[in-house]
Amino acid sequence: SEVKKIAVIAGDGIGPEVVAEAEKVLKRTEELFGYKFELEHGLFGGIAIDERGTPLPEDTLEMCRKADAVLLGAVGGPKWDNNSKELRPETGLLGIRKALGLFSNIRPAVVFDCLKDASTLKPEVLEGTDLIVVRELTGGIYFGEKFRREGPQGEEAVDTCVYNVTEIERIVRQAFEVAQKRSKRLASVDKANVLETSRLWRETVNRIAPEYADVEVEHVLVDNCAMQLLRRPSSFDVIVTENMFGDILSDEAAMLTGSIGMLSSASLGEGSFGLYEPVHGSAPDIAGQGISNPIATILSVALMFRLTFGYEEAATAIETAVKNVLDAGHRTGDIAVDKSTAIGTTAMGDLIVAAI
Amino acid sequence: SEVKKIAVIAGDGIGPEVVAEAEKVLKRTEELFGYKFELEHGLFGGIAIDERGTPLPEDTLEMCRKADAVLLGAVGGPKWDNNSKELRPETGLLGIRKALGLFSNIRPAVVFDCLKDASTLKPEVLEGTDLIVVRELTGGIYFGEKFRREGPQGEEAVDTCVYNVTEIERIVRQAFEVAQKRSKRLASVDKANVLETSRLWRETVNRIAPEYADVEVEHVLVDNCAMQLLRRPSSFDVIVTENMFGDILSDEAAMLTGSIGMLSSASLGEGSFGLYEPVHGSAPDIAGQGISNPIATILSVALMFRLTFGYEEAATAIETAVKNVLDAGHRTGDIAVDKSTAIGTTAMGDLIVAAI
Ligand SMILES: CC(C)[C@H](C(=O)O)[C@@H](O)C(=O)O
Ligand SMILES: CC(C)[C@H](C(=O)O)[C@@H](O)C(=O)O
Repeated sequence: SEVKKIAVIAGDGIGPEVVAEAEKVLKRTEELFGYKFELEHGLFGGIAIDERGTPLPEDTLEMCRKADAVLLGAVGGPKWDNNSKELRPETGLLGIRKALGLFSNIRPAVVFDCLKDASTLKPEVLEGTDLIVVRELTGGIYFGEKFRREGPQGEEAVDTCVYNVTEIERIVRQAFEVAQKRSKRLASVDKANVLETSRLWRETVNRIAPEYADVEVEHVLVDNCAMQLLRRPSSFDVIVTENMFGDILSDEAAMLTGSIGMLSSASLGEGSFGLYEPVHGSAPDIAGQGISNPIATILSVALMFRLTFGYEEAATAIETAVKNVLDAGHRTGDIAVDKSTAIGTTAMGDLIVAAI
Repeated sequence: SEVKKIAVIAGDGIGPEVVAEAEKVLKRTEELFGYKFELEHGLFGGIAIDERGTPLPEDTLEMCRKADAVLLGAVGGPKWDNNSKELRPETGLLGIRKALGLFSNIRPAVVFDCLKDASTLKPEVLEGTDLIVVRELTGGIYFGEKFRREGPQGEEAVDTCVYNVTEIERIVRQAFEVAQKRSKRLASVDKANVLETSRLWRETVNRIAPEYADVEVEHVLVDNCAMQLLRRPSSFDVIVTENMFGDILSDEAAMLTGSIGMLSSASLGEGSFGLYEPVHGSAPDIAGQGISNPIATILSVALMFRLTFGYEEAATAIETAVKNVLDAGHRTGDIAVDKSTAIGTTAMGDLIVAAI
């Protein structure tokens, strides 16, 4: 079978630990399914700041550009929080998204059976919750001009939120396509009663909608969406929204499932290239102790298989293996009810590898 | 006692019904406490668009300017949603905030005992939740320049988010003062890892903090706050944030209490002047049926008494009356477990008036 190049970026905190387990899964699928992966490793985030003086070294970017997909652990930590802008891990994250043209962030928020009770929501409210947030990732206020200036009332700061119709169209089309493969319901979130970018967003959704006549579209204001996610999470199927709203709502949606330590995400551009990473952060407080949960990263591999490589069979095999290991009662500390029975990162990885 | 002028704006949907009950409460407190209120009524929102061709007629604004406080029902409805910008109720809302200098929106999110079960959160998570969101109300992306232009990739829309240090300082100081009167914990919410306005926000909070040394300050990123509100709502005391983040987070906070139909809010400027309104909307679907819940509006009167007039005794009397009526088992349809026993808007108003 064709060789697939995967750029592996372990990153900071628990990143290296969880990525190591995902690499074992990659290796196991080579043996079982005859795939060939060529892994290359690069520095990124805090560790790149420390070792190379920049969060996104040029050779890391080159490595990603040459790869078919990127697997990312996690970046950031308090160590770099007070750095100047160019020396912050977040700047690397924004830079890599822009440089690789990853305009779409896909974040499934599902409830894992074994974690039902971990949610702060009532089980009957959560029942059946299975939604995807499609977040625009390279436009909006994150990437618009930002500056300081002196004004009549003292120092002023300015951020600019810009969207053009082409940017909106491509993310909205992608969301429609995701919805077509699911329950065919799309909630487009904006603040069209106040923002001009939101009005262009809504106009664009309405203009395109007839081309996806099988999908039912609902416009939801962002403040209302923050409420409805709480009130009726299971009524959502696909949510599409701009960068900043997506940042907030996808985190809210992930948290309400109670399964945040298990959720994976994909950042996609044109074509099949994608960057895959767990939704959880770098968890510096538990880094290096071998107790972190590698499942979200392992499931990110499954997502990579499905969305970039078209390896549907292996994707399902990984997901089933995870399910079986959980059903057998194995838990890392973050998801264990009885912490004294919790297993470590590598033990969890080994069990999943063995179960594939 | 001194005459207090109250500008009453019933607005749209259920606005007039709920405001009518609040007026009864005003009248009753005149009898009981010897207050004198001079009420003037003005058109605002959708009804003003219909009758006067603008959501915020100049004479309504004048009436508010001359008043000591404003009592607002609710505005908006689907009827006006597709109007051009100048003819939308929201434009009136933004206009009145700006014109009256109401830079601070104070939204308590508390759990009413009798509504504990109405929340989608587990009771043990909700237990003890009693927080206030202090939202900046006249700056940020809502009020910055907005326009369309032709760009290389087609039509573009632009929104501008601007904050100056004076605007930030006054809202942050107010939040510190609110926190000093409560549990002395302030969470300042921003997106300082990405936005310039957020960095100025955070710098300003840190510069002022030493003047309120008794208040413990925590900086929370907006995406993380959307999660933490769900995970540990009772750990928050006062949350201060900019306009757009406050819009989203205050609605999320209100919804998680399960008590959204009971929550009141105050919009304040310099001095004691304030605009008071229920958190809930105009609920056009149930308007005119006499079944809406007037409690949030009645509690807005209590808030007006406390924050603008300094009528603490009467404020407490109203709140106690509401509590007693609820404890006696009376419910409007929105909060009734057994809908068949629900009472109407005026019946609820009368019971509360009688209980003061
Ligand atoms: C770290 C930050 C810049 C980033 C974002 O807001 O995009 C993060 O919150 C995320 O959602 O991936
Ligand atoms: C109607 C709208 C402009 C308004 C806002 O976002 O400020 C509303 O959502 C609110 O919170 O009062």
